[in-house]
Amino acid sequence: MKLAISTLVRVVVLVCAVLAIVPAVEAADRDKLLSEPGVYGTFATFSLDADWGKQDQVVRIAQLTVLKGVVEQHREKIAIDLYLLRGLSDHGDLMFRIHASELRDTQTFLVDLQHSLFGNHLKTSALMHGLTKKANYVPAFPDQLKADLKTPSEPGPKPYAIVVPIRKNAEWWGLDQDKRAAMMQEHTEATMPYLKTVKRKLYHSSGLDDLDFITYFETSKLEDFHSLVLALEKVKEFQYTRRFGHPTLLGTVQSLDEIIEILAQ
Amino acid sequence: MKLAISTLVRVVVLVCAVLAIVPAVEAADRDKLLSEPGVYGTFATFSLDADWGKQDQVVRIAQLTVLKGVVEQHREKIAIDLYLLRGLSDHGDLMFRIHASELRDTQTFLVDLQHSLFGNHLKTSALMHGLTKKANYVPAFPDQLKADLKTPSEPGPKPYAIVVPIRKNAEWWGLDQDKRAAMMQEHTEATMPYLKTVKRKLYHSSGLDDLDFITYFETSKLEDFHSLVLALEKVKEFQYTRRFGHPTLLGTVQSLDEIIEILAQ
Amino acid sequence: MKLAISTLVRVVVLVCAVLAIVPAVEAADRDKLLSEPGVYGTFATFSLDADWGKQDQVVRIAQLTVLKGVVEQHREKIAIDLYLLRGLSDHGDLMFRIHASELRDTQTFLVDLQHSLFGNHLKTSALMHGLTKKANYVPAFPDQLKADLKTPSEPGPKPYAIVVPIRKNAEWWGLDQDKRAAMMQEHTEATMPYLKTVKRKLYHSSGLDDLDFITYFETSKLEDFHSLVLALEKVKEFQYTRRFGHPTLLGTVQSLDEIIEILAQ
Amino acid sequence: MKLAISTLVRVVVLVCAVLAIVPAVEAADRDKLLSEPGVYGTFATFSLDADWGKQDQVVRIAQLTVLKGVVEQHREKIAIDLYLLRGLSDHGDLMFRIHASELRDTQTFLVDLQHSLFGNHLKTSALMHGLTKKANYVPAFPDQLKADLKTPSEPGPKPYAIVVPIRKNAEWWGLDQDKRAAMMQEHTEATMPYLKTVKRKLYHSSGLDDLDFITYFETSKLEDFHSLVLALEKVKEFQYTRRFGHPTLLGTVQSLDEIIEILAQ
Amino acid sequence: MKLAISTLVRVVVLVCAVLAIVPAVEAADRDKLLSEPGVYGTFATFSLDADWGKQDQVVRIAQLTVLKGVVEQHREKIAIDLYLLRGLSDHGDLMFRIHASELRDTQTFLVDLQHSLFGNHLKTSALMHGLTKKANYVPAFPDQLKADLKTPSEPGPKPYAIVVPIRKNAEWWGLDQDKRAAMMQEHTEATMPYLKTVKRKLYHSSGLDDLDFITYFETSKLEDFHSLVLALEKVKEFQYTRRFGHPTLLGTVQSLDEIIEILAQ
Repeated sequence: MKLAISTLVRVVVLVCAVLAIVPAVEAADRDKLLSEPGVYGTFATFSLDADWGKQDQVVRIAQLTVLKGVVEQHREKIAIDLYLLRGLSDHGDLMFRIHASELRDTQTFLVDLQHSLFGNHLKTSALMHGLTKKANYVPAFPDQLKADLKTPSEPGPKPYAIVVPIRKNAEWWGLDQDKRAAMMQEHTEATMPYLKTVKRKLYHSSGLDDLDFITYFETSKLEDFHSLVLALEKVKEFQYTRRFGHPTLLGTVQSLDEIIEILAQ
Repeated sequence: MKLAISTLVRVVVLVCAVLAIVPAVEAADRDKLLSEPGVYGTFATFSLDADWGKQDQVVRIAQLTVLKGVVEQHREKIAIDLYLLRGLSDHGDLMFRIHASELRDTQTFLVDLQHSLFGNHLKTSALMHGLTKKANYVPAFPDQLKADLKTPSEPGPKPYAIVVPIRKNAEWWGLDQDKRAAMMQEHTEATMPYLKTVKRKLYHSSGLDDLDFITYFETSKLEDFHSLVLALEKVKEFQYTRRFGHPTLLGTVQSLDEIIEILAQ
Repeated sequence: MKLAISTLVRVVVLVCAVLAIVPAVEAADRDKLLSEPGVYGTFATFSLDADWGKQDQVVRIAQLTVLKGVVEQHREKIAIDLYLLRGLSDHGDLMFRIHASELRDTQTFLVDLQHSLFGNHLKTSALMHGLTKKANYVPAFPDQLKADLKTPSEPGPKPYAIVVPIRKNAEWWGLDQDKRAAMMQEHTEATMPYLKTVKRKLYHSSGLDDLDFITYFETSKLEDFHSLVLALEKVKEFQYTRRFGHPTLLGTVQSLDEIIEILAQ
Repeated sequence: MKLAISTLVRVVVLVCAVLAIVPAVEAADRDKLLSEPGVYGTFATFSLDADWGKQDQVVRIAQLTVLKGVVEQHREKIAIDLYLLRGLSDHGDLMFRIHASELRDTQTFLVDLQHSLFGNHLKTSALMHGLTKKANYVPAFPDQLKADLKTPSEPGPKPYAIVVPIRKNAEWWGLDQDKRAAMMQEHTEATMPYLKTVKRKLYHSSGLDDLDFITYFETSKLEDFHSLVLALEKVKEFQYTRRFGHPTLLGTVQSLDEIIEILAQ
Repeated sequence: MKLAISTLVRVVVLVCAVLAIVPAVEAADRDKLLSEPGVYGTFATFSLDADWGKQDQVVRIAQLTVLKGVVEQHREKIAIDLYLLRGLSDHGDLMFRIHASELRDTQTFLVDLQHSLFGNHLKTSALMHGLTKKANYVPAFPDQLKADLKTPSEPGPKPYAIVVPIRKNAEWWGLDQDKRAAMMQEHTEATMPYLKTVKRKLYHSSGLDDLDFITYFETSKLEDFHSLVLALEKVKEFQYTRRFGHPTLLGTVQSLDEIIEILAQ
């Protein structure tokens, strides 16, 4: 199980080679994709097949070089984030979060990925799509709440990421906008104590998938995230939720190079 | 991952060969099949097996030639459309939409496809059937609505296709025709803002499958499709829907030659 | 994909050999098994494994000879019908409908089938059992309805077969016999327009499987079958149905020799 | 498919060898385990893998010798019954019913079985546990009913066995004991006509599995068992049943030697 | 099936070698992790793949040495308990219960485990996470009940472990704290007769998984555990439980060395 020192050195050298081999390409305007409305967010989770781990390390590293190449190449057009689910979620090993102006660009990336040597070892476990939109209910919130919502989250790394797909029931959509707005205000107030430690992002999915929303969270304090969810279960709006999770995807935020190092070992 | 130039040339040559090898056959009266009532529509989705991508490219191209042959041959009798689901849907890699006057002809095509060298790599993930029928509720709609419904959709390519199977609950079918008609009018009015950018087609499935309807959409503006679904979730008729999606199939419209090029790489 | 003429000839010769090799055995009293009460009906659906299609044709034909032998041998005791589901249903490739006086005889046949060389390529996808019984509610129907029910179905082949398993809810069984009889009369009246074009047969399953009924249909006009189901969804009795289909099995009626020809190609 | 005479002889000889090879060991007090309260009953169903049938007959017979050895050895401590599900149930091929004073002994048997050469071909499809207890509601029944319950079942073989897992809903458990007792009396009265032809045994599962009860039946008259279930669906207590079956396991009672003979062919 | 004496000796020698090969490392503060609030508990269940049992014993023992190494190494930081599910649960063969201050440490362990030679044979069947917290409702309980809750469980081994995941419905979370506290008092009182023979531990899961709670039990008297669950099904709070089990995981507590011995045979 423990690699001998010489092997470790060899791995480090090879991995460094991987990390260096692909020249940086001009990145998509990542900041814009991650902050503006009208952007499509895709959560693509994959399991590594049983053969992956049985391959020789050198072969695996060669395939990870391919992974690096595919990701870097597509980063010209789309924003790609990586997560390690293995060891924390039974719904997959790797997750890609992709932001793109057009889902066709996301499709091209994922097809290239799956058609690559590395992709031959991936089995799609789930694909979910959502759209970023301007906040729906916030404009009608009291000024104080609107101001509070702008509280920035604490600086520093937030190693854990959680994805919770949500589907509301038919009764929810049948309520008039005012009633929904009032309940969403109560919902929002319940989240205030966790604004600093739990970062959130919302995607609208109706029609793009069998969901209404994808909620995405990052935190360094999982206990706070747990308390946040508990608080949300207690507000009235929760009673109109037909599906919360199923799956809840829990993983750790990783750079492409970190993922390569983990899978190379 | 990147193919060397010489390889690329070779692929292009081979793919061109594929595209040329099968002489055009007299096509079924596609326009009639796609517009008239009394036609059976089948949505057949397939996953490529794990071996597909591990084969040598030349082998794959030979098998794609077979695919081209099978499709072209059956186009004499039935209308066949192709879609790439891979990268957008976790319910399959390829989708065929088949229109035929008799489901036996569709069965013969799909059996030929599955028994072909290419078909050996396909796993059926879902098969859904529906029947086109004259509009049920439209005759009783106000004249203005009837006129509006004739608005043609904007010209130009609509790269995205979405398939949403629907099952109504027992209460819906227990309502008398007038009540259902009134709700369908509200439903139809909600769809008017999207007539130009989202093309729709309806198939009736009761008895042919575990569904009541298959709804099929094409658009270049996924955001409009999302807004359309959101609007439909808010009308009263939605509360009588037992199943909406599950799966929702999202893919891109592709010609047979485009599919071959994508799978050849 | 297209077999060369010489290969085709060889196949025809081999298939003819298959069809001739097994001498006809004295058949079970098929008419009695298919018409009397107290007979057990089994619907056994199978998928062919991925290896089947990859075998050489001669090997496949040898295995199909075995299939023919097993079926013919057991036809001495039980009635066996075959259906091709492939291309029409995603729940299996082949379906056997077996009528027997004792389920043990059905078990012996299916075990022999699965233990044969051909059976090594079969994966059971579903097994459903039911019992034929004298009509429950008909005796209390008005005379005219009783007479109408005797309308024979139109002569001529009925190529399509559909199997719909049904489970009623607890409330249905809790109703007294009169109320159920009244609703079954309404149900029966709704089916009258389709008596000529849609043949039906009912099996009682409670306890033998996770069902209450298996309904079996044959038709040459699928559109009529669709209309029949639509009519049944609108009667009151449908609201007491917990499961209708899931799966709905749609296939084509085939003789043993036709199945062998299709699978030999 | 038909074994030549010489092969048949060889099989018979080998199977006889199997049947003789393992000397009888002192059996557990089977009668006590099968009749007393406080005994754990386990229903373990297995599917044979795709490789099983592809092995040479001699290899299979060697592995069946191992099966015989494992079962005979453990019969010193636990009572083991065998059933053939193949051909009657799509939830497995073999079922073991095991009675033990301690579930650890059952675990040791099943681990030994799975770690054996034969066990390498078994895939667990379901494991259910229950506990025998003194009758809960009977003491309060009228004397006549209590007396009737003692009617012995008809002598003679009962080839069919059916296992129906049951889960009651929360409302049932929330009722007071009197109300439940009254409904159980109605339930019991409905079963009286089938006491002679359908043998029953009850296991209590709450906490040991995702069930409340496992009901086990043996009969030679499946039609009577069907009528019994139909009668039980009509009593009030059935409306408090959340799960009835799912799966219903239908098979035939077989001795160890019969199972070996069937699998050897 | 029976190992010859000489083979047995060889196994014993090899297994002893395994047990000795990895020097004891300084253990994490296991007592603290197992008793304090704010600790993350993970239940990771795995199935052994079909190849595991087909390997030569020497190869298996080598891989088990790796298992021992990985577990011992990580025990510096986290508390790891092992359970044998095989033979008692159809949801997996092995279960690890891991207590850690940070889920990242659990992830690192499980990734190391899965990337090891032994891990190549493991398929994750379920991963569930929860957090230990101070008792929620106990502070408001009557003093007598609080005192009774401190009753220590009987000394001696408790070989059986049961894990029951729980999800409450939206109505439960919508109740005010007082109502929930009153019902939890009734719930707690129902458990009092089993305090001595059934050890319990509670984990809070909302947001970390598709659950609200993971309840963990150890006992030597499964009948008492069954009675405990039956008592809990009868209190009012149970009616607010949407999911109880599914899966219920039943296994036996084993030391690492015991697991190795069982899997080595």
